[in-house]
Amino acid sequence: MSTLCRPAIAVPEYRITMEHTLELARTIHRDHPQLSLALRLIGNTGVKTRHILQPIEDTLKHPGLTVRNDLYEAEAKSRMPDVIRRALDHAELTVRDIDMIVYVSCTGFMMPSMTAWLINTMGFREQTRQLPIAQLGCAGGSAAINRAHDFCTAYPKANVLIAACEFCSLLYQPTDLGVGNLLSNGLFGDAVAAAVVRGEGGEGVRLEQNSSRLVPDTEDWISYKVKDTGFHFLLDKRVPGTMAMLAPAMREAAEPHGWDIAGLDFYIVHAGGPRILSDLGKYLNLPPETFRYSRATLTERGNVASVVVFDALERLFQEGGAANGATGVIAGFGPGITAEIALGTWTTPARRTEERTEELAAAQGVAVG
Amino acid sequence: MSTLCRPAIAVPEYRITMEHTLELARTIHRDHPQLSLALRLIGNTGVKTRHILQPIEDTLKHPGLTVRNDLYEAEAKSRMPDVIRRALDHAELTVRDIDMIVYVSCTGFMMPSMTAWLINTMGFREQTRQLPIAQLGCAGGSAAINRAHDFCTAYPKANVLIAACEFCSLLYQPTDLGVGNLLSNGLFGDAVAAAVVRGEGGEGVRLEQNSSRLVPDTEDWISYKVKDTGFHFLLDKRVPGTMAMLAPAMREAAEPHGWDIAGLDFYIVHAGGPRILSDLGKYLNLPPETFRYSRATLTERGNVASVVVFDALERLFQEGGAANGATGVIAGFGPGITAEIALGTWTTPARRTEERTEELAAAQGVAVG
Repeated sequence: MSTLCRPAIAVPEYRITMEHTLELARTIHRDHPQLSLALRLIGNTGVKTRHILQPIEDTLKHPGLTVRNDLYEAEAKSRMPDVIRRALDHAELTVRDIDMIVYVSCTGFMMPSMTAWLINTMGFREQTRQLPIAQLGCAGGSAAINRAHDFCTAYPKANVLIAACEFCSLLYQPTDLGVGNLLSNGLFGDAVAAAVVRGEGGEGVRLEQNSSRLVPDTEDWISYKVKDTGFHFLLDKRVPGTMAMLAPAMREAAEPHGWDIAGLDFYIVHAGGPRILSDLGKYLNLPPETFRYSRATLTERGNVASVVVFDALERLFQEGGAANGATGVIAGFGPGITAEIALGTWTTPARRTEERTEELAAAQGVAVG
Repeated sequence: MSTLCRPAIAVPEYRITMEHTLELARTIHRDHPQLSLALRLIGNTGVKTRHILQPIEDTLKHPGLTVRNDLYEAEAKSRMPDVIRRALDHAELTVRDIDMIVYVSCTGFMMPSMTAWLINTMGFREQTRQLPIAQLGCAGGSAAINRAHDFCTAYPKANVLIAACEFCSLLYQPTDLGVGNLLSNGLFGDAVAAAVVRGEGGEGVRLEQNSSRLVPDTEDWISYKVKDTGFHFLLDKRVPGTMAMLAPAMREAAEPHGWDIAGLDFYIVHAGGPRILSDLGKYLNLPPETFRYSRATLTERGNVASVVVFDALERLFQEGGAANGATGVIAGFGPGITAEIALGTWTTPARRTEERTEELAAAQGVAVG
């Protein structure tokens, strides 16, 4: 039984507030016929701060795809090793213990994939399998978890490193002026993450079952148009209503496992926007605090694409995790529209439970038998 | 035990011969200081014909990445369903039997991935897992086989569809004038393929073991530079010598399985260029006819990237396959430099063996007991 261990997250240095975002929209798009709608939509995201790779003045320039993809590569190489080292530490493993690297990123393109550079640079074994995933967008994080789960089911002693790298600010397109674009410009942020799925041992989410669901005929709801200027993100106004279709899909995913999706102990859900979380609460009849980890990610970092589920999970770890055996779900949503859903139970190794009992006993001045 | 069934292949209508390629190179690059070297290298590829999407006059124009990627999408949508249907027929399965689609392509980019379109258009189940792989280049075909093998090892009743789509002619860059570019312009061709890996049953290569190998510090030997004009393919002059490192890797991959890589019954090897095949024969002390399937692919279609291994395997099927229990290897090589290696044995279902025996008996006028 494989376990998704504690993720490591990092965000870039430059920070932009909701106020600054609104002010920029008012200035840049002052003559836009739907400016007030765009401002309202941005305000409704609840995104208070985001982190971006470059100062905002540079972010708003488009130096061409050549320059942008070079920047993507340089920044990925500069930022990924640290989160990967931390994720390995969390999992109590070294680079030599890893059998597969799943690298997820939809905001830049490299061939060879970053996996080759990571193996060469960080000392992973030459036999490490490489699985780069570029075309699943925001669902890529949970897809990576699910494929890592599959791999460890096939090879129960294997360990998989997941590395997620999303520099959404490198997809800013000054000439895209739809309301969906203006909203996206105020919604997405940059972040990187890593996490290990251990085939044996480890503390975190023991992965029990995974599934995928495509919502029929919604291909053009979330998509890229690939142009001379790079990826152009298109967001249809119907997307915020997606949970009407995905909440039942999540329920159906849990049923064969004998679980009630509305009765789990923890929820790690992609925070694409505020309505995903409020609608999911509505459809599953769950109180808002159920989604506090996802909401905190959205509020503090914006939608950081495939990184969201790792950032939300890290917040659960920060809170001390869940009780041993607590049930939960990790769900990512992205283009397709695709949902990638993982069901799991919180697991704390026996040793760790003993240490905690001993710590508690020591604190209470009691000897443990 | 999962089985890789008979692939289906298709090539576009337009055909270009080696003579025409050489004539074009002489005309377009008449002032190139290394023209004679380039002509000699192209001549040495042994590529007699290639198939391309468009007439050569249009292939040689660069209408910009926007137009090219639109063309990629339209052509992929037009050409993939037919090979997929044929591959399903070969595997005696329907779209409803497929649990995962692995889509491999390094010559265009779509989000949502083609997997979403295929599910929506061809009637695959909404629960079908989607695994698009874009960044493994020519190794993508065998990587897809290996990940499908892993998936069926995790879920032994599962079936995986692999779809490979390579329109290398859409990567022609008129301003790239290195000798490696001129060679590439005469080496690569367009083709699409599909094949099913059946978790249970099926005739073909029963997948037994897979492995991956990165050759250290060769990231820049085969790579894309991503520019405003799209993917720019870079081929280092050291690449043809790669088998000096990969032949031992193949040997080491077979050893834990108790197999001698030089003593197998069939070899399905990526035909990146002629020296890969001749060097592999040299290092493993195998006669040239060992690689006749791969060589035929190279001669008739050029290097068709991730499609090569499927095209070569299809030629083995055309020849009637191998004897039940015959041992073989499928090996793809691509950027990284990465090798993806699969070991398997030829398997013919009992029913099929009986039918053949009956056919043979009928032909001989003998009753079978």
